[in-house]
Amino acid sequence: MGFSEDNMKGVVLALLSSGFIGASFIIKKKGLRKAAATSGVRAGVGGYSYLVEPLWWLGMITMIVGEVANFVAYAFAPAVLVTPLGALSIIVSAVLAHFILKERLHKLGILGCVMCIAGSIIIVIHAPQEHAITSVQEIWSMATQPAFLLYVGSVIVLVFILVFHFAPRCGHTDVLVFTGICSLMGSLSVMSVKALGTSLKLTFEGKNQLIYSETWFFLLVVATCVITQMNYLNKALDTFNTAIVSPIYYVMFTTLTILASVIMFKDWDGQSGGTIMTEICGFIVVLSGTILLHSTKDFERSSSFRGSYGPVSPSLSTRLCSGNGELLKCNEEDVPPSEDICFRRQELY
Amino acid sequence: MGFSEDNMKGVVLALLSSGFIGASFIIKKKGLRKAAATSGVRAGVGGYSYLVEPLWWLGMITMIVGEVANFVAYAFAPAVLVTPLGALSIIVSAVLAHFILKERLHKLGILGCVMCIAGSIIIVIHAPQEHAITSVQEIWSMATQPAFLLYVGSVIVLVFILVFHFAPRCGHTDVLVFTGICSLMGSLSVMSVKALGTSLKLTFEGKNQLIYSETWFFLLVVATCVITQMNYLNKALDTFNTAIVSPIYYVMFTTLTILASVIMFKDWDGQSGGTIMTEICGFIVVLSGTILLHSTKDFERSSSFRGSYGPVSPSLSTRLCSGNGELLKCNEEDVPPSEDICFRRQELY
Repeated sequence: MGFSEDNMKGVVLALLSSGFIGASFIIKKKGLRKAAATSGVRAGVGGYSYLVEPLWWLGMITMIVGEVANFVAYAFAPAVLVTPLGALSIIVSAVLAHFILKERLHKLGILGCVMCIAGSIIIVIHAPQEHAITSVQEIWSMATQPAFLLYVGSVIVLVFILVFHFAPRCGHTDVLVFTGICSLMGSLSVMSVKALGTSLKLTFEGKNQLIYSETWFFLLVVATCVITQMNYLNKALDTFNTAIVSPIYYVMFTTLTILASVIMFKDWDGQSGGTIMTEICGFIVVLSGTILLHSTKDFERSSSFRGSYGPVSPSLSTRLCSGNGELLKCNEEDVPPSEDICFRRQELY
Repeated sequence: MGFSEDNMKGVVLALLSSGFIGASFIIKKKGLRKAAATSGVRAGVGGYSYLVEPLWWLGMITMIVGEVANFVAYAFAPAVLVTPLGALSIIVSAVLAHFILKERLHKLGILGCVMCIAGSIIIVIHAPQEHAITSVQEIWSMATQPAFLLYVGSVIVLVFILVFHFAPRCGHTDVLVFTGICSLMGSLSVMSVKALGTSLKLTFEGKNQLIYSETWFFLLVVATCVITQMNYLNKALDTFNTAIVSPIYYVMFTTLTILASVIMFKDWDGQSGGTIMTEICGFIVVLSGTILLHSTKDFERSSSFRGSYGPVSPSLSTRLCSGNGELLKCNEEDVPPSEDICFRRQELY
């Protein structure tokens, strides 16, 4: 097996990230509730009282810390390891919601948590070792190999078809259009985030990579991908129920990210067929657990639980978006019906 | 990894066994329905028309073939490999019921099937190799090592406490009493079935083991354990709903069997910590899938599906019992309300 030190750092960072992000949703929600209770004016009707609520800011800070940890994790460990571990933030969120917000967790939801954990352990045990990367040019040569260029080309073509052909026609009736765009762009986001993260890591280690144009190019790609992804995730969440968007998005996004990583970083080279098969099964288990956790929300007709699981998305960009997604849930019957929409708008515009 | 030829034989036999047993329940049910339809007299009101129904007999034969395959599988591969694969018979049953009996499979039930398959693949990939056994005395020395004797002793003490103290007091109110007795005895059943199977396998290979008293002792243990187990499983199924008994029983039985096998056959010796951890996770995934499959039955208020998953039990003895369990389901609201009870009585007395 031989679990490398870098992999271990990556796992610890990914776990911390999930813990922080999962907790941040609960803290923010508590903050919003408290702000609404003390001022009597909700954010949705013009109130910004949550901005003077320390608990809300604590939630924001917790989330940012989590995102940074996630970003750094990608610099240390392969995406096939870091990405699926993002599912654990849902568990943290669900468990904390159960105990702190007193939002009842369905028995099958607990089963979903158990599965996410079991699947994550399997993935961690069988994760590939990453080849040591020594410069941004090395990443550049990986990114420009024919197989990965073919992947990027296909993604861009598909995104264009979805954006210009399908989005105007059935974007508002078929959930797969907007979530498809997000997931396709998301896989490129993670790859560029990983490239940028590795460059920064090397820079901090004393090998300055900022002098190379490739580093800046990756930064440009990160910005473009993340903005596109955020934009369409918000459209998806605006149009459809979070409970429908989240699991579909998680499955497509994670699958495409792993595919991209396997092509670009050749994560599976040198691994035995059995190990790869186990990783895929572990991944399927995590996906099933996530779907189960989200499906059981439908069983609680009291929707006070819906949406409170927090994010289903495992990457920096994604998390930022599904942060909004989490807040958007207030479109539904849940607690303060508009404060968060307001907050979301404020963030976006 | 190095998957041995014997392990492969064991896996193929276990899969065949699950296929046959899963199918047998569907065939028998079709036979019972047809018999009731053609004769107009149900088994419950004195009809034995199913005994002249070829489809019912085909189901019985399919089941016996499946049981034999399961028995032989234990002679080739470790119990930690064969036992969890028994869950696949539930999937076969559920899928066939969906297509042949038109019993609707809940979406989460499909997820449960996917999990059982993913977990089984993980277990198969990481299964330990069995040390080649050359004589029944070798098994005897394994069975009489202090650690295993301690296990057997604890099981017997626990069973006695459950039978004589708890069964009269709360056996009919607490589902754990009867299922606990079955599960504890079941783990000894599987160990003795494996000992007997291996002896017979050696005998067929030309090394006659029937001359040793140990072989006959194991036969005696098999008979005792299987009868006790059958008796209490029937009590459990008579007292409680199949949908409650089945998953609890499957979880306890499989866990105890794996524990017994690990102690007696030292299945995990020479395996790395990571591999053992992966096996345990795979096992948890299969258990979760089984629980999910059974839980989703509760969501279909039309109970025409309940019980039709067939057996949840993976060993010879168990399967024979839950054959009765399956038939007993007719106690509930399902189809012919008494024919099978009649049949069960007929089998038992």
